[in-house]
This record gives sequence, structure tokens and C-alpha cells, in this order.
Amino acid sequence: MDLFGGIESGGTKFVCAIGTATGEIKEEIRYPTTTPDESISRAIAFFQKAATQGRTLKAIGVSSFGPLDPHPTSPKFGYVTTTPKPGWMNTDFVGRLHTTFPDLPVGFDTDVNGAALGEYRWGVAQGLDTFIYLTIGTGIGGGAIVNGKPVHGLMHPEMGHVRVPHDLAADPFPGMCPYHGDCLEGLACGPAIEARWQQRGETLAPDHPAWALEAHYLALGIVNFIVTLSPQRIIMGGGVMDQHHIFPLIHQEVGSLLNAYIHAPQILEHIEDYVVPPGLGNQAGVLGAIALAQTALTIG
Amino acid sequence: MDLFGGIESGGTKFVCAIGTATGEIKEEIRYPTTTPDESISRAIAFFQKAATQGRTLKAIGVSSFGPLDPHPTSPKFGYVTTTPKPGWMNTDFVGRLHTTFPDLPVGFDTDVNGAALGEYRWGVAQGLDTFIYLTIGTGIGGGAIVNGKPVHGLMHPEMGHVRVPHDLAADPFPGMCPYHGDCLEGLACGPAIEARWQQRGETLAPDHPAWALEAHYLALGIVNFIVTLSPQRIIMGGGVMDQHHIFPLIHQEVGSLLNAYIHAPQILEHIEDYVVPPGLGNQAGVLGAIALAQTALTIG
Repeated sequence: MDLFGGIESGGTKFVCAIGTATGEIKEEIRYPTTTPDESISRAIAFFQKAATQGRTLKAIGVSSFGPLDPHPTSPKFGYVTTTPKPGWMNTDFVGRLHTTFPDLPVGFDTDVNGAALGEYRWGVAQGLDTFIYLTIGTGIGGGAIVNGKPVHGLMHPEMGHVRVPHDLAADPFPGMCPYHGDCLEGLACGPAIEARWQQRGETLAPDHPAWALEAHYLALGIVNFIVTLSPQRIIMGGGVMDQHHIFPLIHQEVGSLLNAYIHAPQILEHIEDYVVPPGLGNQAGVLGAIALAQTALTIG
Repeated sequence: MDLFGGIESGGTKFVCAIGTATGEIKEEIRYPTTTPDESISRAIAFFQKAATQGRTLKAIGVSSFGPLDPHPTSPKFGYVTTTPKPGWMNTDFVGRLHTTFPDLPVGFDTDVNGAALGEYRWGVAQGLDTFIYLTIGTGIGGGAIVNGKPVHGLMHPEMGHVRVPHDLAADPFPGMCPYHGDCLEGLACGPAIEARWQQRGETLAPDHPAWALEAHYLALGIVNFIVTLSPQRIIMGGGVMDQHHIFPLIHQEVGSLLNAYIHAPQILEHIEDYVVPPGLGNQAGVLGAIALAQTALTIG
């Protein structure tokens, strides 16, 4: 049975796992993200120990916070590049893995492209070829599979930074993105909810007006992604989306904003199956990393 | 020498051409778009006449205004579907061609996906795998090649309908999209310029404030497409973009809005090569249709 290593490198925690080609996780560890040296070394030690116990890997996949370089032919492939996260700028993540495991193919992509790939293989995006995975949490990120492959293009999508209408009379909160102020992330990430209402989102009652406003901004972002990418489904994960009562609000608002312009039954009749939570729950990230490992093995 | 037929079906005019596998046009006609019967029959007659003169086609491609159904496996493949254009709703475009030319493969896609494909084969998108083609004219449309193939997904992109911030104090024009009011198309298409300033765009001097405002809205749209799709280039055609003096305004505004968030030299250092006019000029559309014909032949 082929085994693959997956590393989900998040801003606050690392998840490392060993899984099969069918997405079954055999072993997993989680620990807080610290320095690159320490965080990556612990992942390496985990895989080395597994190997001594007979769990030899065919490939490793890394899904990481970014920005990063996902282009295999680029000199900076495998680097976390211009991240503001202290100590992590210009970290050669894949290089460190290659030093210890010179014979293993290593896949590398954004956390959200990785999660999208995981959902594509084993979750709620099976059988689709073009869809989006969004995470709404400390930040807002989006990954996409288009025509069956993760989108990289110039670099990789940075969907959280999409600009949306912001009615300052109705919502005077100026937004908190250090680059753009009131882009989607600036208006609708978890910390923006907390800053606007002066209390943490999970403490706001489901009927608090915070949620209608949050759904409004998220729906504006979604509508922009729909008209740009024409996704067959939109998967929404992340801490904010653990408030499941927000999904129906989003469904209604997306329909209202599109105003029946996109004549697709998936949107007009079944929007509750169109904008959905992840199928893989809190394993979406690390399963995505395992999917990246498999892809790396296939590509060579 | 293999020959291909191309039909560019526009809202106001048809362009039909016969071209080679290298994008050389041998023969071309242009005429106003009228009813589906008449417009498509003239295209058919053009190809039939060419055949009697020894110009036998290997395949036909159609790039059309939409919305339309570009999915070869769909029962409505080849239809112009829910278009508001009088007489054209539910037009089986490809079916009419098949009746006359039962043995010819027929490719079918949006005008903007077609133009993108033409630029990919023979224009300013050669060697890229992920880019966008926008047209700014009577309406605003966008097509995209991602991972080397036109984007369809749920249907096809409808980029003109992206939502952007609209400061009503600075620009009280309410927008003119019948579905969305002040989406990008509602604020920045050619007729919106005319309605806002009470004169046709081409009569406005290059230093008229209309152009800075137009560039502002187009740049907002572009920034949204960049963060969503991560294109390696953005090609901008259509009647409004014939005012070439608007390109430098757009370049400056895109840079300013992104605020150095996307660390790519293509944007930070060479934006004049990143947002560019079409390489194929006013033949982009029909060459795109010829490229669609070639693709149809290859796919089967």
C-alpha cells in the first residue's frame, strides 16, 4: 500500500499526516507554528520516525499559507515568499524537505489550493472540473481548480483581496487590510467582525445584525468569483463558517445580488448545494497536502 | 493545406472567414446581424460558395455573443440561450450548421473566449497558460484561458457583471445594467460613458475627467480579476479601448489599487506589458472562431 506524507502549514498550527492513496489517514500530529526551523524539523522528524516503523513514503505534499511560489520550474519553487509572518519570509520549505528526503517528490501549493484538491479527490467536489474553495477565518483566502487543475497563473489567487462595494453610511467600519483597507478580507475576516462589533464573532447571537452584514460582504465576494470563474460549486470553510447559520443568509444574498442573471439551475434552484461547507471537515487541509503529494508523484 | 471556417457572431455584425491552421485569412465577409435565420444562412452560403471554388473546410468554429451553452456534452450545446437580443433566445446555432454540414466538427464558445483562444494561438498570449481577454464596448465581457483551456465551468464567465466600489458622491451616475445597476458593465461600458457625460465617448478629449473615471472603474474590475484568476496577462479590446490614451491611466490605477500586494515583476515593473491591447486587432474575433474550429477538429 502506497503511503504519502502531508504537511498543512498554517499561520497558527501545523498538521502533519501519513495517508493512503484513497485519503485514509494512518497517523497525524498537530502542533503550533513557531519558527520555520523548528516547525519544519518537527514535520521531518515525524516522517523519519514513521519510516523506522515501516511507514515509508512515496511522496510528500505541503499546503501552506502564502504568498508562495508554486511553479515547479521556477528557481524559487517551494518557497514561502513575501509573507508578513515574522521569520517566514523567503523560507525554502521544499528545499529543507529535499535535503532530508532527496529521493521523494514534493508537491507544494497554497493551503486553499491544497484544500480544493482534497475536496476534488475525496470531498464535495468529486466529478467537477471547475470550482472554488474559500476559507474565512483570521484572513480570507481562496483556491480554485479550473479545467481539472489548481490555478497558479502569475502566482496564485489571492481572492480575499477582491474589492467589493462598501456603504460607509450603513457600515462605517473602515476595513482592516493593511494593503487595501476595505477589500473583502478587510471587511469580513474574523478579526474584522471582532473589531467592528467589539466582541468575538462566536459570542454574537445568530440573530445579531453582524451576521446579515457578514453574509452580505461574503455574497458580494462570491458573486464576483462566480462571474469571473464560473465555478460549478463554491466550498466555504474556516473558523467564521463554523457558524453554520450564516449559510442560508449567504444563499439568499447571492441569489438576490445575481438577480437571476446567471440562468443555471444550480444557482436558481439549488443554491444550497452550490455554496456548501467542506466535505472533509477539519481534515480538508492535511488531506489536501496528501493529494498534493500524490500529484507530485504522478507528475514525476 | 487544411482550411477552417470561422464565424464571429456579434451583437451588431457577423464576420465570416476561411483561414489556415497558421491563422492566415484567405477570404472574409462582414454583414450586419439581423435574424438568426438570415444571419446564419448567409454564413452557410459563404462556406458553400467557397467549397464550390475548391476551398473545402475541415471544421467550423463559432464565437458568439451569449449567454450560450459551450458544453459539448450538454443537450443544449451550440445554443445561444437566454440572450435579451430580440429573436435570438434559444437559437440552435450549431444545429443549423450541422444540418448543412453534417460531417464537419463545429466548435462553439463565447466571443471573448474565442478571442482569447485566437490571441493564445497567434497573438499576444502565445506561451502563456492563464490569461484574460476583456472587451469594453456596447457591453463588457471577459473570457479566460486557464491551464491552457477556455474557462466554462458552470456556464462561462460573465466578467462584465463584477461588482466594484462606487462612490455615489463622486459619481452620482446610478449605472445602467438592467440586472445589477452599477456593476462594472453598468458603470463603464460605452453607453454608460455616453449617458453619464451626455456625449459619445469618442468625442471626449483625452484630458476630459471621463477617462480618469473610466480607468478607475476598469482598474477595479481588473484588480478583482487578478486576485481571483491570477492571470499572466490581461488583453483589453473593444470600442472603448480604441481610445489608447486610457491604457496608461489604467496601468497607474491598477498599480495603485493593488498597492504592491502582488509581488510579481510583471505587475510591479512591467505593467505596460501586463495590461495590453489585442495583438490581432479587429481580426481577433474571427481568428478566434477559426481557432475554435481547429480545436473542434482536434477533439473530434
